[in-house]
Amino acid sequence: MSDMIEVFDTTLRDGLQVEGVSASVEDKLRIAEQLDHLGVHYIEGGWPGANPKDIEFFERAARDLRFESSTLVAFGSTRRPRGKVDDDATLRHLIDAGTSAVCIVAKSWDYHVLNALQTTLEEGEAMIADSVEYLVGNGRRVLVDMEHFFDGFKRNQEFALRAIEAAVVKGASHLVLCDTNGGSLPHEVQEIVTAVKSHVGDDATIGIHCHDDTGCAVANSMAAVLAGARHVQGTLNGLGERTGNTNLTTVIPNLQLKLGYDCLPEGRLERLTAVSNHVAEVLNRPMNPQAPYVGNSAFAHKAGLHVSAIARAKDAYEHVDPELVGNGTRFVVSEMAGRATITMKADELGLEMDGPAVNQVIDDLKRLEHEGYHFEAADASLELLMRRATGWHQDFFRVESMRVITDETMAGDFTTEATVKVWVGSDGSATRHVHTAEGNGPVNAIDKALRAAVLDAYPQLERIHLTDYKVRILDGATATGAVTRVLLDATDGERSWTTIGVSGNIIEASWRALEESLVYGLLHTPA
Amino acid sequence: MSDMIEVFDTTLRDGLQVEGVSASVEDKLRIAEQLDHLGVHYIEGGWPGANPKDIEFFERAARDLRFESSTLVAFGSTRRPRGKVDDDATLRHLIDAGTSAVCIVAKSWDYHVLNALQTTLEEGEAMIADSVEYLVGNGRRVLVDMEHFFDGFKRNQEFALRAIEAAVVKGASHLVLCDTNGGSLPHEVQEIVTAVKSHVGDDATIGIHCHDDTGCAVANSMAAVLAGARHVQGTLNGLGERTGNTNLTTVIPNLQLKLGYDCLPEGRLERLTAVSNHVAEVLNRPMNPQAPYVGNSAFAHKAGLHVSAIARAKDAYEHVDPELVGNGTRFVVSEMAGRATITMKADELGLEMDGPAVNQVIDDLKRLEHEGYHFEAADASLELLMRRATGWHQDFFRVESMRVITDETMAGDFTTEATVKVWVGSDGSATRHVHTAEGNGPVNAIDKALRAAVLDAYPQLERIHLTDYKVRILDGATATGAVTRVLLDATDGERSWTTIGVSGNIIEASWRALEESLVYGLLHTPA
Repeated sequence: MSDMIEVFDTTLRDGLQVEGVSASVEDKLRIAEQLDHLGVHYIEGGWPGANPKDIEFFERAARDLRFESSTLVAFGSTRRPRGKVDDDATLRHLIDAGTSAVCIVAKSWDYHVLNALQTTLEEGEAMIADSVEYLVGNGRRVLVDMEHFFDGFKRNQEFALRAIEAAVVKGASHLVLCDTNGGSLPHEVQEIVTAVKSHVGDDATIGIHCHDDTGCAVANSMAAVLAGARHVQGTLNGLGERTGNTNLTTVIPNLQLKLGYDCLPEGRLERLTAVSNHVAEVLNRPMNPQAPYVGNSAFAHKAGLHVSAIARAKDAYEHVDPELVGNGTRFVVSEMAGRATITMKADELGLEMDGPAVNQVIDDLKRLEHEGYHFEAADASLELLMRRATGWHQDFFRVESMRVITDETMAGDFTTEATVKVWVGSDGSATRHVHTAEGNGPVNAIDKALRAAVLDAYPQLERIHLTDYKVRILDGATATGAVTRVLLDATDGERSWTTIGVSGNIIEASWRALEESLVYGLLHTPA
Repeated sequence: MSDMIEVFDTTLRDGLQVEGVSASVEDKLRIAEQLDHLGVHYIEGGWPGANPKDIEFFERAARDLRFESSTLVAFGSTRRPRGKVDDDATLRHLIDAGTSAVCIVAKSWDYHVLNALQTTLEEGEAMIADSVEYLVGNGRRVLVDMEHFFDGFKRNQEFALRAIEAAVVKGASHLVLCDTNGGSLPHEVQEIVTAVKSHVGDDATIGIHCHDDTGCAVANSMAAVLAGARHVQGTLNGLGERTGNTNLTTVIPNLQLKLGYDCLPEGRLERLTAVSNHVAEVLNRPMNPQAPYVGNSAFAHKAGLHVSAIARAKDAYEHVDPELVGNGTRFVVSEMAGRATITMKADELGLEMDGPAVNQVIDDLKRLEHEGYHFEAADASLELLMRRATGWHQDFFRVESMRVITDETMAGDFTTEATVKVWVGSDGSATRHVHTAEGNGPVNAIDKALRAAVLDAYPQLERIHLTDYKVRILDGATATGAVTRVLLDATDGERSWTTIGVSGNIIEASWRALEESLVYGLLHTPA
């Protein structure tokens, strides 16, 4: 028995079936890079036969991405019923994707062959055999997703095994048993995978692909591994349609830390939390704080008497060391303060900080992060906060007042205008500037008005522009009264920076981030 | 072997350890009513010895609640080390709570007895024996939560079993094996519960209490049942500290629909989705749409070729009939939708749609999704769009104009006010209402102003409120000039819905979503 489990990530294909998410080709390329960085064996990139955007993804990936650890996989299906492999569009798209490995879905429940495909079981088998033979003949490694396998096996075991044999004899490298409707329980999966393993032996690798409809996708995947599967499919953060696919951020540490299998290359597991967060960010999906291993609450302890006890014997209170997955112990009430980190950061920025200033930064961070700030994501705002702790104040400009008005007319048109009153220059010689600008939204309008007001004094603002604007609602509970976190990215063409604003008022949050973005730009961009 | 599994709900005690939730006594009483309505066997109401609010809860519960199905349980712990039962405050509070059943936590991992309690193993045993004897002597049914049982059993099996015996010989009715750190896997749980069951026999009921730190709380609970446990503890929606407790909304249907155990009284399982939503609502926690069985996406199907196939044979595509848990099949509609999907969706909504109306919907979807709308995520906006294609117009109210003003003063304070001018009622007899409201942000302000303007005519708006507000910037390239997509979730306490607005102007996008949200609510919420 090998102690290596292949991890097959299908975030970019099955994962994107989750409701409410749409990813651009650019988003998908960024996620693929993260997956390679994490070190999964296979990255399923998309279904070029079904989705034109996925054709572009494979072209761009071939041109722009160089994977260190992962193999890119194109997904498709077996040939049409009563068709030929030579003129089958799906198979041609698969070959055109240019990946060394392909994964095709095949029907292994007799019901679906007879009723969904409306063909005979013999033709169902031939569709699998012909397609695998054709793809292997074209030099591809061929993985076969046996759709509805567990339901099919329960109803017609003989056909389910014939479907498997059709793939094996033509050279499929992997038979991936799919619990497509997600209704199976661990003891059933273990029993059926044991039966398949004894049937297939070492002729092909057995894989497992689960959905979480019984809340058991992770447990089902582990049951399959205990029964002989050596290839686990899933998605980051459990993305996927309905209840989601097997969550790789849970099953990988379970397999690696608890069952002793090798899943990721040496040293990669500790990237898990960061990659999980990064992918959530790219897709603008909030992380589940309760997510095992990678969630913000996963190793959070309610403070009180236990804190010192936990510090003395962490393994009596934590099921694994959170640092193994790149997460950390968190004490909910009394946050641990990091003097060393602040001092190092000050050195990095060339700031002189004495003890009281470091304490001030720690206090400010605690207070502001409690309010919803997140300085990890906003390097420029952190730098300004640290400078202020040393007594520094920006004297580029001082805002007297700001007003934004949005009107909807009877005809349903919207107009927005902002008026900004600003004092420019140091206190003694400051001059007052009032500017009004229209914009196609409040943030756009205040950005234009503020720039117009200070541009004469700081012409370098012409070179500084905003590149991204992200909004996150932090507490869904109070809906439109919730706290809003705005992140603004800006660049002067040489360096890029991010600022943050947090407020119950989205305009205020945006304005704070905007003001800091311009101040940071003025600090670092020569006139 | 009995085919009945007792359900023990600890939402009101362990569940409230989840980060970011605080519940009033009133909230807890409302949740207890829901739990009885669902029909769980036991409702653990709180820890009167640790929390003064919980003392009030038990007083109010005794006075105001009459349970039809459930038994209320007070939670506490064994007596102090080297103390006496007669003058132990925790035990006294337990008795004072006046419940017929109590649950006490006992240490069953030798490490915690020796190090956390700083006492001997003999005294650890005596603490359990004395406390059970005392409570039984006071006429209580006594359940014992064996804390850290699985970790303890792995390290010192002999002491773990001695702890159990101490409880059994003094008359404990239940031994609840707790995976306190949540690190266990199903095969370990099954093995250890089997060992305990063979040790204890029928002297007491074996219970299971899991946490989801390996993503296996549900699977672990079922593994325990398969090994002989007949009492399952958990929380609604998997609330609980760190990664949460066993999710009862998942494990109950698994046990009842898939393994054939009786968990809830006849006819109650179909209340599951409503109770799950209601409790989320009381605690102001958004529902996880991906939650098995009860989530909004749990039985959602992506449109396309499969829709008509699903309609023909639902059990080939759904692991259980969603109506058994009070949920429903949902067809997700997007720009890829064909005529069949739209027609089925119309049937689902009870709308009569002729051919031209269906074509109109398909055209509208294509155009709007190209602009950035995403109807998959916004069922209510889709329904309104489909209704409009049949010639329907909402005649609840008509907006003449809307204005939002945000001001920042010299002191840095922000104020936002919105003025809305609306005609209420059908065209002939419409009356004009002008209202201004302040809010802590533009969306909050326009929500308040619009409601104030139409509330007299539609008092049911009091019951409708917004539960979540999501903002996505669609094209980062143009930063603050980018297109904004707003999703608004709302509820009337019975059903929840989502609307969408898209615009270059975030205020306009929010306003569109808000207007549709209220219109949808007025359509479906009786006066």
